[in-house]
Amino acid sequence: MNFCSDNVAGVAPEILDHLRRVNDGAAMPYGGDPVTERVEARLAEIFERAPATVASFPVATGTAANALCLAAVTPSYGAVYCHRDSHINVDECGAPELFTGGAKLVPLDGAGGKLDADTLEAALAAGGRGVVHHVQPACLSITQSTEAGTVYSPGEIAALSAVAHAHGLRVHMDGARFANALVALGCTPAEMTWKAGVDAVSFGATKNGALAAEAAVLFDPEAAASLPYRRKRGGHLFSKMRYLSAQLEAYLADDLWLRNARHANAMAARLAEGLSACAGVSLAAPLEANELFVSLPPHAAEAMRAAGYAFHPWPSLGPDCYRFVTAWDTDPADVAGLVEAAAGAVAA
Amino acid sequence: MNFCSDNVAGVAPEILDHLRRVNDGAAMPYGGDPVTERVEARLAEIFERAPATVASFPVATGTAANALCLAAVTPSYGAVYCHRDSHINVDECGAPELFTGGAKLVPLDGAGGKLDADTLEAALAAGGRGVVHHVQPACLSITQSTEAGTVYSPGEIAALSAVAHAHGLRVHMDGARFANALVALGCTPAEMTWKAGVDAVSFGATKNGALAAEAAVLFDPEAAASLPYRRKRGGHLFSKMRYLSAQLEAYLADDLWLRNARHANAMAARLAEGLSACAGVSLAAPLEANELFVSLPPHAAEAMRAAGYAFHPWPSLGPDCYRFVTAWDTDPADVAGLVEAAAGAVAA
Amino acid sequence: MNFCSDNVAGVAPEILDHLRRVNDGAAMPYGGDPVTERVEARLAEIFERAPATVASFPVATGTAANALCLAAVTPSYGAVYCHRDSHINVDECGAPELFTGGAKLVPLDGAGGKLDADTLEAALAAGGRGVVHHVQPACLSITQSTEAGTVYSPGEIAALSAVAHAHGLRVHMDGARFANALVALGCTPAEMTWKAGVDAVSFGATKNGALAAEAAVLFDPEAAASLPYRRKRGGHLFSKMRYLSAQLEAYLADDLWLRNARHANAMAARLAEGLSACAGVSLAAPLEANELFVSLPPHAAEAMRAAGYAFHPWPSLGPDCYRFVTAWDTDPADVAGLVEAAAGAVAA
Amino acid sequence: MNFCSDNVAGVAPEILDHLRRVNDGAAMPYGGDPVTERVEARLAEIFERAPATVASFPVATGTAANALCLAAVTPSYGAVYCHRDSHINVDECGAPELFTGGAKLVPLDGAGGKLDADTLEAALAAGGRGVVHHVQPACLSITQSTEAGTVYSPGEIAALSAVAHAHGLRVHMDGARFANALVALGCTPAEMTWKAGVDAVSFGATKNGALAAEAAVLFDPEAAASLPYRRKRGGHLFSKMRYLSAQLEAYLADDLWLRNARHANAMAARLAEGLSACAGVSLAAPLEANELFVSLPPHAAEAMRAAGYAFHPWPSLGPDCYRFVTAWDTDPADVAGLVEAAAGAVAA
Repeated sequence: MNFCSDNVAGVAPEILDHLRRVNDGAAMPYGGDPVTERVEARLAEIFERAPATVASFPVATGTAANALCLAAVTPSYGAVYCHRDSHINVDECGAPELFTGGAKLVPLDGAGGKLDADTLEAALAAGGRGVVHHVQPACLSITQSTEAGTVYSPGEIAALSAVAHAHGLRVHMDGARFANALVALGCTPAEMTWKAGVDAVSFGATKNGALAAEAAVLFDPEAAASLPYRRKRGGHLFSKMRYLSAQLEAYLADDLWLRNARHANAMAARLAEGLSACAGVSLAAPLEANELFVSLPPHAAEAMRAAGYAFHPWPSLGPDCYRFVTAWDTDPADVAGLVEAAAGAVAA
Repeated sequence: MNFCSDNVAGVAPEILDHLRRVNDGAAMPYGGDPVTERVEARLAEIFERAPATVASFPVATGTAANALCLAAVTPSYGAVYCHRDSHINVDECGAPELFTGGAKLVPLDGAGGKLDADTLEAALAAGGRGVVHHVQPACLSITQSTEAGTVYSPGEIAALSAVAHAHGLRVHMDGARFANALVALGCTPAEMTWKAGVDAVSFGATKNGALAAEAAVLFDPEAAASLPYRRKRGGHLFSKMRYLSAQLEAYLADDLWLRNARHANAMAARLAEGLSACAGVSLAAPLEANELFVSLPPHAAEAMRAAGYAFHPWPSLGPDCYRFVTAWDTDPADVAGLVEAAAGAVAA
Repeated sequence: MNFCSDNVAGVAPEILDHLRRVNDGAAMPYGGDPVTERVEARLAEIFERAPATVASFPVATGTAANALCLAAVTPSYGAVYCHRDSHINVDECGAPELFTGGAKLVPLDGAGGKLDADTLEAALAAGGRGVVHHVQPACLSITQSTEAGTVYSPGEIAALSAVAHAHGLRVHMDGARFANALVALGCTPAEMTWKAGVDAVSFGATKNGALAAEAAVLFDPEAAASLPYRRKRGGHLFSKMRYLSAQLEAYLADDLWLRNARHANAMAARLAEGLSACAGVSLAAPLEANELFVSLPPHAAEAMRAAGYAFHPWPSLGPDCYRFVTAWDTDPADVAGLVEAAAGAVAA
Repeated sequence: MNFCSDNVAGVAPEILDHLRRVNDGAAMPYGGDPVTERVEARLAEIFERAPATVASFPVATGTAANALCLAAVTPSYGAVYCHRDSHINVDECGAPELFTGGAKLVPLDGAGGKLDADTLEAALAAGGRGVVHHVQPACLSITQSTEAGTVYSPGEIAALSAVAHAHGLRVHMDGARFANALVALGCTPAEMTWKAGVDAVSFGATKNGALAAEAAVLFDPEAAASLPYRRKRGGHLFSKMRYLSAQLEAYLADDLWLRNARHANAMAARLAEGLSACAGVSLAAPLEANELFVSLPPHAAEAMRAAGYAFHPWPSLGPDCYRFVTAWDTDPADVAGLVEAAAGAVAA
């Protein structure tokens, strides 16, 4: 009964099955296999792009996908604008700095984990474009869904992209929870990305049922020209690539990725509903995907843990705030049990 | 019928089975799971080290393991001494340079893919220790088995390590084919590494039956203190770590790794025997593990390929030289077929 | 009549004279000359340190001194805590990131350009020491005098250092205006640095009368062990080092550095007094050294410029704020003229 | 009587005089001064380039000029082809690696310190263009005059450049002794550089009479677009830039640079003639500029040193080989004395 994160979840059986299916004799290494070829075509299809206008690079971790996307569009003397609480800024131990050769992340404030266009405009106005003393604005990075569990609408993304592009920046989306946001919005992958001005996406699958699979997806192949070398140099080019690609192939087949995300979101909604009904419990942030932030009396949190439920405190949203994350495999019985434990705890 | 490399091979069924076995509900991420704990203990056992005197870091690629090991012991202004043909020098697109922050690889010559102690001693005598103009000697890296298919004896390793240590260098072993060398030597992992002076090992499993699993193993935990951060920063810390560790757990269980390596070596031996018996065919290098280098009439190579056998030319060993690599899953029938094709081709 | 910065000033004649004096035949390069040896001894004397307990490295720019000091104590996965407006954070185009191999600067807020101990304590409490996802707290960097013209007292420095050291950080002082702060405080260099817990100083001379000379001074020679190589590798080791050292030698002789700083500070005080007396003019920040921030009616600023006085707007302190910097060679007549121009302008 | 290097020499009085001349009141910093503007125009003139087709960046050291030029044209995953004994490869403690973000230097052999076109062609043929495992060929760097004292003819440079350009590489010239080579050849700066295919030059002045002044000169302004930021970030942008530019201005005025170089070369020629006439003494390499390599009986070297003459052994050219370097200020009497001492020593 672990609600700590969606990365505590297991691997979808469809994906494990497909690993076995592609484990059939020899295959050329480093992406020269048919599975990888098919996955590239499938990603192009999902994003509604002609193959020549999109480049995708499967890797095993979201940190790698993020760092590679940022390095593709940010010189060593560049600046990446991002939310203060973004994963790239606080949870990757400096991976963007390593892969870009020492670029600077410029942390911006924003309510509910989101940046807005005015904040970005103000920051860029002070950003020192062309002034030799300052790192040069190169990239805007947003997270979808955000680290606060919220979801940017396509319109919000487009507004941010418009500012970014007007100042010569590229736009990156950290899509560690891409599918959760997508199904919450009910739009298409294209609408949530390049049609709203996004240039590069870290397309996450791990949190939503894969073993360890993400893809750096760039809509400007010219910007992607350095990525094959950067991926190799980063140690992220798998020799037995077919098993990485196979995870993505199964993930994108038969709507598995969308079904998984819908389940996770639905479980979060059910949990939100149940917890909200408990006296003394309130949502600390709006629930928009599969991350739920709740204010609880500390003794209730303690009792819920004692009952076997694991979850993290989230002090940045308040002293009595906790985070609960649901996943593709969250058991409705566990949600019910957690709500029951909470109800009992606050009543005690 | 692919003899291009051992990385064209599939995944051992025991390993795929174990992935399924550990796919059982939630587990804490980033290595906080019991599988990872068990693998760390198992690696300590295999290397005959008390747990406190060894640190191991599972990663997905050999390039990552190498770069992390080198970065642990080489400052940005340091030098890594290695064979001219070593994987770290020619086949990792500069990964060591990236992870060390710009250290320099000093390529040395050596027959049969091996360095010898005299060459190293001469290079270090000219290396400029303490001279501010020169990068500072920091590490010796050797490959076991080597890129030329040969195997260092424990005595050879000890001789190299003695020179390296006398000059203040740490010793790294790129063990992409660790098991193949080990069973060829018939010694213990400890004898082939720390007892011979090796400080850090890239312990390879991918080529020998894993999906994508290696481990950076350091025998000096103090030198390893930076590695958790470097691994994370490199994008190499898996969130769902249990599936990476599970590969290693199955690999190291029931002698699977040794059985796989023995099979690969045996297939190479059989292939060497068969090809040597063909008129006009000769070994271009001694066969010591699972990589075979053979001189063939070009028309024979062409005929063998036409018959469906894939393998790479190896011009660095001669204009008519080719490499054949066997793996844990090489089919004896394919070896027989390849020999037959060769025999037919040279007779034509 | 240029009040834009103290780096628009010329070179003190004593320093140019000394360049000529040391230009006497051959001298061994790269610091193997007697001038450099004497400067090292003189710096030890000024800082009241036994020679074996201090290491100094002359370089030509403050950015180099800062970046080298930071790199000496910050690993690539480290974090440097600094003021949001600090030179290292906004005016060095990422030099700290380059020289550290990609460390992260953590910008903190603080009134009047200064950090305080509570802010630092709070930031470090959230800093993630030992958590693999976060860059690791490594260094606190403060500027003396600050970018807002203020001066840390030894007690304030000691309070910050105590917090930093308690969390395992080293303390760096960007002393681009070291002498201006020193004479303002009336304390000794030792009291302003290591006696207050500072581990490394960028000891500036350029702004105060040198041509291009600073020194990275470290009070822990062990921490300085990598600096000779980092300086060389950064392209900052002069071959004809004697001319760099000679600047520092003349600077530190006969109290030139203190006299120059006293003059600059006195001119700023006179300017502050004169401008404050003008109707509609007020100080935007307390004057503590040689940088003066003043609120002026924009038409007055325009008139003063038309009268031939150059100075920069300083919007971060307010829409009508301007900065005036005095230097070792500021002419009292120019100060009087500037005050007169201001008085006339505000009266118009 | 120091023949160790031309960097032991002093500063030409014309240059020191000019420092005093420009020390006249305030000047805008960071290159916004008229001296810098004039030097840029002068460099364009000397290289016969329209101002818009050349970009020049004064810096204080040759290592900085080299590293910046290389970084301008080499990505982090790039390779720089150079002579095994080149300064960038052995004497800059990894500066090119730092400034490029970890590119690799590929050392090539070549007689007399020179590369030839066939060697380069062969290396590039094996260089792995487009192969993801290999660093990507990006730059050829040659030294003029070379580390062995020899000089490339314009024809030799053109032949190398043709190969480099055919493979998509840029060509860099480390011109630490640019003037010595130029007067030896009797050609124009344009003929020795861009007319022969050179794209970027480290234009040295320090060894030939400046205090600390070089310029990175690029003939493709587009390739230079990143250099202002890289120079700043490297700590190499002087605030009081006029004193750096003034050195170059005086250096390039009234043929001072050419006169200085002619003197140095003439003194080397005289020394070569004198030493060659001594029994048992022979040139170890052809004298083509101002570096002389001589084979001497060790007892003679010892006696010459005892007589007060300083010079370095040069074991890479042979066990009894020594290097003598003359400079712009070498006293003919010292040359005569050195020859006399040698004659006496070999006769003893």
